[in-house]
Amino acid sequence: MTLPAPLTGVVPPVCTPLTPEREVDEPSLLRLVDFLVEAGVHGLFLLGSTSEAAFLTDAQRRRVVAAVTAHVGGQLPVIAGAIDMTTPRVLEHVAAVTSAGAQAVVVTAPFYARTHPAEIVHHYRRIAAASPVPVIAYDIPVAVHTKLPADLVLGLAGDGVLAGVKDSSGDLAAFRELVTGSRAHPGFGVLTGSEQITDAALELGADGAVPGLANVDPHGYVRLYRHCRAADQEGARAEQERLCALFGMVGVGDPARMGGSSAALGAFKAALHLRGVIDCPVTAEPQVPLSGEEVERVGKFLAAAGLLGQDAHGG
Amino acid sequence: MTLPAPLTGVVPPVCTPLTPEREVDEPSLLRLVDFLVEAGVHGLFLLGSTSEAAFLTDAQRRRVVAAVTAHVGGQLPVIAGAIDMTTPRVLEHVAAVTSAGAQAVVVTAPFYARTHPAEIVHHYRRIAAASPVPVIAYDIPVAVHTKLPADLVLGLAGDGVLAGVKDSSGDLAAFRELVTGSRAHPGFGVLTGSEQITDAALELGADGAVPGLANVDPHGYVRLYRHCRAADQEGARAEQERLCALFGMVGVGDPARMGGSSAALGAFKAALHLRGVIDCPVTAEPQVPLSGEEVERVGKFLAAAGLLGQDAHGG
Amino acid sequence: MTLPAPLTGVVPPVCTPLTPEREVDEPSLLRLVDFLVEAGVHGLFLLGSTSEAAFLTDAQRRRVVAAVTAHVGGQLPVIAGAIDMTTPRVLEHVAAVTSAGAQAVVVTAPFYARTHPAEIVHHYRRIAAASPVPVIAYDIPVAVHTKLPADLVLGLAGDGVLAGVKDSSGDLAAFRELVTGSRAHPGFGVLTGSEQITDAALELGADGAVPGLANVDPHGYVRLYRHCRAADQEGARAEQERLCALFGMVGVGDPARMGGSSAALGAFKAALHLRGVIDCPVTAEPQVPLSGEEVERVGKFLAAAGLLGQDAHGG
Amino acid sequence: MTLPAPLTGVVPPVCTPLTPEREVDEPSLLRLVDFLVEAGVHGLFLLGSTSEAAFLTDAQRRRVVAAVTAHVGGQLPVIAGAIDMTTPRVLEHVAAVTSAGAQAVVVTAPFYARTHPAEIVHHYRRIAAASPVPVIAYDIPVAVHTKLPADLVLGLAGDGVLAGVKDSSGDLAAFRELVTGSRAHPGFGVLTGSEQITDAALELGADGAVPGLANVDPHGYVRLYRHCRAADQEGARAEQERLCALFGMVGVGDPARMGGSSAALGAFKAALHLRGVIDCPVTAEPQVPLSGEEVERVGKFLAAAGLLGQDAHGG
Repeated sequence: MTLPAPLTGVVPPVCTPLTPEREVDEPSLLRLVDFLVEAGVHGLFLLGSTSEAAFLTDAQRRRVVAAVTAHVGGQLPVIAGAIDMTTPRVLEHVAAVTSAGAQAVVVTAPFYARTHPAEIVHHYRRIAAASPVPVIAYDIPVAVHTKLPADLVLGLAGDGVLAGVKDSSGDLAAFRELVTGSRAHPGFGVLTGSEQITDAALELGADGAVPGLANVDPHGYVRLYRHCRAADQEGARAEQERLCALFGMVGVGDPARMGGSSAALGAFKAALHLRGVIDCPVTAEPQVPLSGEEVERVGKFLAAAGLLGQDAHGG
Repeated sequence: MTLPAPLTGVVPPVCTPLTPEREVDEPSLLRLVDFLVEAGVHGLFLLGSTSEAAFLTDAQRRRVVAAVTAHVGGQLPVIAGAIDMTTPRVLEHVAAVTSAGAQAVVVTAPFYARTHPAEIVHHYRRIAAASPVPVIAYDIPVAVHTKLPADLVLGLAGDGVLAGVKDSSGDLAAFRELVTGSRAHPGFGVLTGSEQITDAALELGADGAVPGLANVDPHGYVRLYRHCRAADQEGARAEQERLCALFGMVGVGDPARMGGSSAALGAFKAALHLRGVIDCPVTAEPQVPLSGEEVERVGKFLAAAGLLGQDAHGG
Repeated sequence: MTLPAPLTGVVPPVCTPLTPEREVDEPSLLRLVDFLVEAGVHGLFLLGSTSEAAFLTDAQRRRVVAAVTAHVGGQLPVIAGAIDMTTPRVLEHVAAVTSAGAQAVVVTAPFYARTHPAEIVHHYRRIAAASPVPVIAYDIPVAVHTKLPADLVLGLAGDGVLAGVKDSSGDLAAFRELVTGSRAHPGFGVLTGSEQITDAALELGADGAVPGLANVDPHGYVRLYRHCRAADQEGARAEQERLCALFGMVGVGDPARMGGSSAALGAFKAALHLRGVIDCPVTAEPQVPLSGEEVERVGKFLAAAGLLGQDAHGG
Repeated sequence: MTLPAPLTGVVPPVCTPLTPEREVDEPSLLRLVDFLVEAGVHGLFLLGSTSEAAFLTDAQRRRVVAAVTAHVGGQLPVIAGAIDMTTPRVLEHVAAVTSAGAQAVVVTAPFYARTHPAEIVHHYRRIAAASPVPVIAYDIPVAVHTKLPADLVLGLAGDGVLAGVKDSSGDLAAFRELVTGSRAHPGFGVLTGSEQITDAALELGADGAVPGLANVDPHGYVRLYRHCRAADQEGARAEQERLCALFGMVGVGDPARMGGSSAALGAFKAALHLRGVIDCPVTAEPQVPLSGEEVERVGKFLAAAGLLGQDAHGG
């Protein structure tokens, strides 16, 4: 299956369910994939930040991609992160995830090492030259501590190096520059990583969205996408506000006791467990688990959003 | 060979010479190791930031450790970085470098993923529990964007989780808290990563130093260490100032054209090439190479420090 | 005149024209005010960041407020910044600008001194207790290096301490939390400081906008506001994109030669000068002036937006 | 009295005692000045960060300088901060503090407004041109969020624009560049603002020190200075470690309840109150006061350092 150009729609960054021993829980992963596909999502993004890619060993990463691509069998696009510090290490992940079936790779700026725009450009050029599939830039300053400049991304779009960008920067003004600038590059996809302003991003022209919360409520994001595409501003606003309220679950983890990753991924996995989609809500180490009381509060967010007491697969 | 407790002296973070094809240049690496050992350094730190660990593939990392440990055959302690984003990935590197012969592992706080002190503590506990050799904390905020709090490090020292700390934070006041606090934990080593205030760190009680520039001038750092141990403040000051002038080489790379890693590692490798220690000054991708004119300026720094026109092995 | 509750509409942060000697150019200031009022703006914000408040002496600040309030005579709301480091100094500015006629004061979190949420709360409480007019919080992390947390602002809204917030953080997801949360506090105004995503902010429920670029093209922002209020998404999108292109003028100043403030405020003032609204485009010291070539490029942005060769007052 | 060139020795940044109503407590201020002078300090720095300059109104600032300069009558140099956001506002403070008797002004980089090295250079040139007394640069990135580059400072030293620098950056490697570079500019003073590595700064060549903790224990810092000047490394080390332990008092304020300024300045003032030097330990708003239990812990730090139960004036 060829990647659509541009990639559009709701493309959840798929959580990676783990067993209590912190191995990849493949049956839960495939149930989650089915849950998302049945909800109508337009693609799957494996091994992103929400997938705990930073926590998975190389073997676990390969297993995730192989299992999912085999399972969906080309029904919808499957793209995968190749998250590592620098070009040589990323190239190894690109080889691994593409041989496991990924139809595009998603790559950040270098991190850990101090970097520079000229080095970022060289990084993407080398990776695109070596990759058998399209390369999508992943702009996630909270993780890599560099913001991809819009003109750098658009320059690489113009040169055919990049096939798209996933923007998790939270900076909608810069995102708009990408959207506007990319009109000169048909086929280049501009995707937002935001959960809370997905409507705004789509309405100003984004091709699609990659919201972590779409693991928990894919039906909601699919409805939101449809409202935006139909220019139903009122419907979009209502759906987005419901999703924003649901997103409040990422705040239940006590910040005196855990970091933002533990809180957010812990909440998503607790919600998927409460909805009956995955078997175990455990997150990878060294993340701190939610307490029982915190999990209860996740349940209340689900209930308030109308997502408990119903069959997860019904929507 | 057992790691001395505490680890003391000059422990250079060994550069990783590469071939023009960017494979590990093993003959050059072993020549560099000989150069350092003959200069009297007290240990070797492989796979640190100066070693371009962030740029080396897993196979290259293993090769570096195996080659060096086989070569030095227990003459002096060899420790190795296990640099990766989170606990599960670090554990794999710990297994790899220790089976290749490293006598201690050097581990940073988690990065890429947002983290929290409680998670950092759990990270080190898990790694120490699984590691067959001592674990040394690596405090390098410029890379991981978290500063290890002194009380966290000292708490883990007290619990026997950590055997030492390598501080590359540049914050000498915080470093002093480590030095003072570690007196309660005999055997715990406090090492500075600074090139420019090594004298000050040693004089306030550091056990040793891990300066990147010691690749280029190991004799200078060994002399500096001896001056400090002999309380020869005047001699230490003169040697340190000579080394600070030499360190100016990290500024020859044009900041409009490259990042700090390209400039610093490019200068170190150019200097080692000019001194005849390594065959090729190339750095790993996506780093930008120094220009010919910039390499010439590196040569002038060497000449001004009295390091050209002499046999590198003479010191 | 009483401040509307909430304050709504387009409320430009009024530039402060200076003479070549860098005194307040009162005739130009009043011409600018007339230009804005005739374009249909809904209020005026004096002594904000775009007004160069950080560069004006106390006497200049008072003169600006006195001149403008006397001139507009209650036709529309006039609010003023009371920008200083801490509570005692801000209180002096509050007294000065309110005695000069400001109908509300706009106050940031403390800066220079390290601060804390509890201190920010106390800061606003003390100022509101002493202020004869409503207090509006000014969230501008790029200047004060603290982001006002949404729950802190909403808590103070609920207690009647704050009458509104001007958000220049660029973080639309956090802005949405303010908008949604403020529904429980009728009369509390939520205003965006963004030039580039004003449409998105208004469409998700902002009460108004305070875009610096509205000095240059007030008619455009008034039209944009009307489109958004009329739910004319297509019209809003087109107008906003025209304004975004115009906003490109803030990038003409060479970043190798000047900072972001020099570039942005220099471009706004050059544009106002080219449009014939103000007599002199000079900015306050130590800002660096645009070069002649850079001013020409500002002119090209105006021309491309259809704003040259027309009477500025015609719109 | 002319400022010594360079300024040397211990120059405490003098705390500003306040009455319970938060007016300047002039009798306490003069008692504090006497306490410092009798301890042998070499100069006084008024209106620095430790003096709560950011919290004092213009009238309070003038009163502090006038009272102290009248009191000390030229016995020792008195310098004063002119802390404000930009050139025009700083110039007003320069006029005020010099007419009140300050023998030098201490000036930071611009803050609040985004800035640039070229603007910082212009800022200092303009201020030096207008100031009747020497200008000392104040490098305090924690407050102004810009680090003064060493080459910028040294360039201005060479041009006679700056008479010295007070470095509160905590970056000893950069500080050493200032010290080494300033040898080409006799008369230029390089002062450290550090409490904890004063010995190291002096030993590598600093002209003097401006430690906030010298308010609490001026005798200790004077002894430390003498040890360093006498090259008594062992004596210096012991004195510095005693002072570092005493400095632990800045950590008694609960970080869940207050910011770093409240904690540090609250502790210094509590200590001065406990030592009988000032009448009231209150800090300016919006700072949060220490609790009774926290003040008790400050007392324990004093006792451990041998500073309670003795006459403060005895030393």
